[in-house]
Amino acid sequence: MASSSEIGLAATINILTAFAFLVAFAILRIQPINDRVYFPKWYLRGLRSNPLQSGAFVQKFVNLDFRSYLKFLNWMPAALRMPEPELIDHAGLDSVLYLRIYLTGYSSTSPYFVYNFYQMQLRILISVLDLLFIIDIRLKIFVPIACLAFSVMVPVNFTNRTLEESKLTYSDIDKLSISNIPTGSNRFFTHIVMAYAFTFWTCYILKREYEIVASMRLHFIASENRRPDQFTVLVRNVPPDPDESVNELVEHFFLVNHPDHYLSHQVVYDANLLSDLVNEKKTKQNWLDYYQLKYNRNNQSKRPSVKTGYLGLWGKRVDAIDFYESEVEKLSKKIFKEREKITQSSKHVMAAAFVSFKTRWGAAVCAQTEQSRNPTIWLTEWAPEPRDVYWDNLAIPFVSLTIRRLVIAVAFFFLTFFFMIPIAFVQSLANIDGIVKAAPFLHDLLELEFIKSLIQGVLPGIALKIFLIVLPSILMMMSKFEGFTSISALERRSATRYYIFQFINVFLGSIITGTAFQQLNTFIHQSANTIPATIGASIPMKATFFITYIMVDGWAGVAGEILRLKPLIFYHLKNFLLVKTEKDREEAMNPGSLPFNTGEPQIQLYYLLGLVYASVTPILLPFIVVFFALAYVVYRHQIINVYNQQYESAGAFWPDVHGRIITALVVSQLLLMGLLSTKEAAQSTPLLIVLPVLTLWFHRFCKGRFEPAFVRYPLQEAMMKDTLERAREPSLNVKDYLQDAYVHPVFSNKDRWDGSDDGVSDDEWPKEPALVPTKRESRVNTPVRSQRSESSRTLLCVTDERSCP
Amino acid sequence: MASSSEIGLAATINILTAFAFLVAFAILRIQPINDRVYFPKWYLRGLRSNPLQSGAFVQKFVNLDFRSYLKFLNWMPAALRMPEPELIDHAGLDSVLYLRIYLTGYSSTSPYFVYNFYQMQLRILISVLDLLFIIDIRLKIFVPIACLAFSVMVPVNFTNRTLEESKLTYSDIDKLSISNIPTGSNRFFTHIVMAYAFTFWTCYILKREYEIVASMRLHFIASENRRPDQFTVLVRNVPPDPDESVNELVEHFFLVNHPDHYLSHQVVYDANLLSDLVNEKKTKQNWLDYYQLKYNRNNQSKRPSVKTGYLGLWGKRVDAIDFYESEVEKLSKKIFKEREKITQSSKHVMAAAFVSFKTRWGAAVCAQTEQSRNPTIWLTEWAPEPRDVYWDNLAIPFVSLTIRRLVIAVAFFFLTFFFMIPIAFVQSLANIDGIVKAAPFLHDLLELEFIKSLIQGVLPGIALKIFLIVLPSILMMMSKFEGFTSISALERRSATRYYIFQFINVFLGSIITGTAFQQLNTFIHQSANTIPATIGASIPMKATFFITYIMVDGWAGVAGEILRLKPLIFYHLKNFLLVKTEKDREEAMNPGSLPFNTGEPQIQLYYLLGLVYASVTPILLPFIVVFFALAYVVYRHQIINVYNQQYESAGAFWPDVHGRIITALVVSQLLLMGLLSTKEAAQSTPLLIVLPVLTLWFHRFCKGRFEPAFVRYPLQEAMMKDTLERAREPSLNVKDYLQDAYVHPVFSNKDRWDGSDDGVSDDEWPKEPALVPTKRESRVNTPVRSQRSESSRTLLCVTDERSCP
Repeated sequence: MASSSEIGLAATINILTAFAFLVAFAILRIQPINDRVYFPKWYLRGLRSNPLQSGAFVQKFVNLDFRSYLKFLNWMPAALRMPEPELIDHAGLDSVLYLRIYLTGYSSTSPYFVYNFYQMQLRILISVLDLLFIIDIRLKIFVPIACLAFSVMVPVNFTNRTLEESKLTYSDIDKLSISNIPTGSNRFFTHIVMAYAFTFWTCYILKREYEIVASMRLHFIASENRRPDQFTVLVRNVPPDPDESVNELVEHFFLVNHPDHYLSHQVVYDANLLSDLVNEKKTKQNWLDYYQLKYNRNNQSKRPSVKTGYLGLWGKRVDAIDFYESEVEKLSKKIFKEREKITQSSKHVMAAAFVSFKTRWGAAVCAQTEQSRNPTIWLTEWAPEPRDVYWDNLAIPFVSLTIRRLVIAVAFFFLTFFFMIPIAFVQSLANIDGIVKAAPFLHDLLELEFIKSLIQGVLPGIALKIFLIVLPSILMMMSKFEGFTSISALERRSATRYYIFQFINVFLGSIITGTAFQQLNTFIHQSANTIPATIGASIPMKATFFITYIMVDGWAGVAGEILRLKPLIFYHLKNFLLVKTEKDREEAMNPGSLPFNTGEPQIQLYYLLGLVYASVTPILLPFIVVFFALAYVVYRHQIINVYNQQYESAGAFWPDVHGRIITALVVSQLLLMGLLSTKEAAQSTPLLIVLPVLTLWFHRFCKGRFEPAFVRYPLQEAMMKDTLERAREPSLNVKDYLQDAYVHPVFSNKDRWDGSDDGVSDDEWPKEPALVPTKRESRVNTPVRSQRSESSRTLLCVTDERSCP
Repeated sequence: MASSSEIGLAATINILTAFAFLVAFAILRIQPINDRVYFPKWYLRGLRSNPLQSGAFVQKFVNLDFRSYLKFLNWMPAALRMPEPELIDHAGLDSVLYLRIYLTGYSSTSPYFVYNFYQMQLRILISVLDLLFIIDIRLKIFVPIACLAFSVMVPVNFTNRTLEESKLTYSDIDKLSISNIPTGSNRFFTHIVMAYAFTFWTCYILKREYEIVASMRLHFIASENRRPDQFTVLVRNVPPDPDESVNELVEHFFLVNHPDHYLSHQVVYDANLLSDLVNEKKTKQNWLDYYQLKYNRNNQSKRPSVKTGYLGLWGKRVDAIDFYESEVEKLSKKIFKEREKITQSSKHVMAAAFVSFKTRWGAAVCAQTEQSRNPTIWLTEWAPEPRDVYWDNLAIPFVSLTIRRLVIAVAFFFLTFFFMIPIAFVQSLANIDGIVKAAPFLHDLLELEFIKSLIQGVLPGIALKIFLIVLPSILMMMSKFEGFTSISALERRSATRYYIFQFINVFLGSIITGTAFQQLNTFIHQSANTIPATIGASIPMKATFFITYIMVDGWAGVAGEILRLKPLIFYHLKNFLLVKTEKDREEAMNPGSLPFNTGEPQIQLYYLLGLVYASVTPILLPFIVVFFALAYVVYRHQIINVYNQQYESAGAFWPDVHGRIITALVVSQLLLMGLLSTKEAAQSTPLLIVLPVLTLWFHRFCKGRFEPAFVRYPLQEAMMKDTLERAREPSLNVKDYLQDAYVHPVFSNKDRWDGSDDGVSDDEWPKEPALVPTKRESRVNTPVRSQRSESSRTLLCVTDERSCP
């Protein structure tokens, strides 16, 4: 058990690290050369142009305006200033609701934190807290309850002398925890009462949040513009028919069974080969653009040449522009042929189709009803947004799906409990002798004492580290194999799996040392009531470990997130080595979307820690509150300036978030029960067993009350929008509108769907060279701001030229 | 452990009891006086009249045709002869599918039984088995697998000498069981292989049965006549509105959101008071009929008189006919007023309505979709059949429903685990001293030694026995409180609870002695892997107990079922004491419907026993097979001749049946795992752990594959029926047809719905005195047969007179 001074030291180090990151960020972000790393979102939206096009040469790379260095922290208020409705407009509902997860955690734990500091007379921090209050005014409702909680618990823990009288070593932190209360004391009733208070409080917040999120979702869906997915249903498992093609079959089936509403449909083609060809053409086209640009830049004096062999390293030297022009032409012909083949042969048609309806009402009806007698064919579900479709999985038959699910469930079990085995194996191989054997020429180098010890120190950890880095990708591959049809569903499932992995291997793994499989083995051989007792009893001892964990993984991690060190390095590397054309630069800049599948499980781990320690070692809470507040500000900044969402699911992940917080709550209750049973407060069990029952019931209540808003689409809503639309645009031709919405990306000239007003995709620009009128403006305070409108017009003209070959 | 001779004795006693019941039944059923007890179904269908109306006086009561006594067992082939499609016509799909549960059990266990007897050279039984084969010809497919199973297992168990060499007492039966194999022997692999074979076999049968049942259900629904519930949806939780009444609100909502399909609706009234008044009037009317009949029978010579006081025992003597006529009139006025009040005041309108649509398609769409943004209002579901509606529960709001569910879940937990506490308390009160204190005048009587010992022997058991008898009613009350809206749903939920109760208190309670709570306490303090071991280890020892249980509860119980001793006595008692009019006789005769909520859990208990003992003590299987075969024949007879189904859910219970058999299968696998772990066959665990995983996966597969056919209604189906109907009856007025279908029973002159051709209800007869043409005939072989057509016409005229006052 670390003493409070050790914790203080760790905190100082981590605060300094985080602060260093923040300062580094503050300096790096105002350098024009890094502009595309820290504000890619504005570039992608076409509201900001390349800062390279103006000013003196040096100023293109380094910011010489020293006044701007003084205001190095002003990104924080800037990040907080954008009001929520505008943020939804700017970044989508998914991003805003993602931020809400932090806010929820923050607002449900911070009251304890506030009062904690009151108790400890650290009034110095109150001004900071006042700032935080501004973030979420609703906090004020919670303070009374929190005051009650902390005014009771800290004195109750602190005013005992158990630890002082015992021979054990202890720290100041332990004096504030439940360990300081003598065995069998009646004071444990305080903790039981507090557990009740925390449970009711958390449930209250959860219910309120669910209500708000559900109404935000419905409002968002209601106020959305016309989108193809509102009219479209994805039909899977179209049965094979000897007489009719899939195309005819789908048309006949829906003409018969939805006669008044069916409009058109789009069959799904198996276009993997075509997709490869298109990508190849894209690369060649890129080279062609590069050489043409080069030729033009050199005033058309010298035509560039290139070798035809691998990577341009050997082979015959030919004229580059001619070569790539012929290559592109060849590929174009090939693509044309392949496209003909796919559309004409029925072999490439998959047993799935996107069926469109005349009205939203018709689509809502079809998506929610059973079509056929046989429940495994003609399966209908809402079509995902066109940009959210995961095309490869559209044609998996029902039986194959269930088998895949079994295979993945078993595989995930083994991954979670036995992942240490292959890693240990790799570790045993990767030693100095092994390397020397494999590469004898390194022998002399490895004999050096310094390098030898370095490698021996680093190597064993590397395998594990690599595994943890690739784990999200492995989980994503698993989800893909399982057969989900949209990217959002893939990410949600991966997040669930990642949370389970973290719960078992980080949370339980830290409390009970040993691999997950050893734990499992122990649990099987233990009785049901000793498992929570075993875990519960070691919880107070691990408080300091988790405080350190929160500071390293949470604080420094969040500060690292805003620094974007990896994208920064990669962007500059790519920029120097690979970037040939403007298009390449766009790709090098691509910030990706919010890492939901790794970020959400991390937040959930903090929820779990917060709830478990709330009634055991309340001192842990401030660290979590700081994490939530910091992460909220940082991610708000990132969402405004960096991330570019790939899809919009309108917060479809919230039921998962809710469910996991409930899980954390139940785990915390069971562990407290176990802990108190080891403290000989046996009469507490019947009192505490009520809590999980109530919590689970609350979960079922919320599920029934709110979840339908996330999985179904009310007819009332659909009818309202249909009626409004008919009144506003009586001459609208929906069929034309939906014509090409769900064409496989390789069949359209566009790579992504660009039908929505906020979805200008990252590698495709609007063809009209006019600037879309917008009330939004770049809120970041950098020197390039004034050039926005002019340069973005230039950029658009450039891209326009490129995208219409 | 009982020896085989003891088992033989028990078997003999039980076979004799069962046989005695069967003989008694055979004799009683051909007595004309019992005709209404044993063939009420034919009376209710109007195909059989009162045997009292013909022949000599003695022949009215006793059958003197001695030839018919010789054919006393011919009801068995008669019961088996009616082909399945006709049985569906006659008794509904629910009853036929209920029989299938027995058949499934029979056909999945009997092959082992067959081969068992082959092995034991008891060829004498083969002729009986041939008879059984005729019942289900499909059995022949299964025999090869069963041969494999038994040719392996019985020799493997029998050819050991473990029990002979041990000092333990053992019986011949134990020599055939797994107990006879030495600890740690490799022979346990046989049992593992057999467990695999049984699992795959059971799953194969289950899948096939689910397929057949699902297609039968769909076929039944498709071939059904037009019924009001096909067009109707039950809407609950209509939100309160300050400006509009529920009536207007419902109309507006559906006119807006289902403009092309909405037809009409019927609001639900809170009519409990009215219902009471109607019942009172019915009683008075009944008395009036009785006195009028009496007066007419006495040639109108003497007008009957009656006293006005309680039960006619005191008060002023008045003319009975006049008195009841005025009473009936008074009540009629009261009813009229109350009806006016209810229909005119909005206070009696509940927040629920039956909404009817122009087409089945429209209703199917509305029932399966979400209507409103707020998922707790405008909840739609399929309307149950009018006769299946449980009117009292229609207006429970959403929040109240979830709270009720929690309350009942907790109550059921306490009922299951702590029911012994109040019973023990009552037992402690109900002793001789207590009785003497409460009723001193019994003092002398109770001092008699014989009576004293009798009471002391019987009293303690009585409280428990009474509890077990009323348990199904308690569970039914719980389900009613929980808020289900149809009687079929109430029964299904009660069946689930009864199964859980039996599983814990009969199955586990018999294996591990002690109350359920003591077990629970033990389990909590045991580790997860020792629980199956503890139970598994005591399983072989309890085989003889369960064999006896099967014979007493199963064999004798089934034979008792066909004897209908309780209804027989009650009918005759009522007939002598209470029956005044023809209507009373109908009510005294009322056979009720199949006891699904108690019968199905009993079958499931036998499934559990069969699957658990299949690989441990195969000798138990023949007893279960005999039970299944006997029960099948008996219930087939009862369904044809006795029970009158109250509703038709088209086999909606099958997913429950399937799920419970899967549960039994998983339990049997876990227990075998536990048993083998105590036998030091530790290497078996990894092999056996695969089985529950596969079984649960199979369950999920079946759920996805078949369950939608039981909970949703495919649009294809609806569209097909709509189109057919439009072609056949273009002038059909659906609105007229649905006008009064869902009126609360007290508002219609009828007490029950009589819209379907097979649903002539038991207290209301068709008003037209014409006999409905039918191809069905009474298949039972009794003297009254020849009088059928004439007398039923007489009966119909009588009832017609009565029902049109």
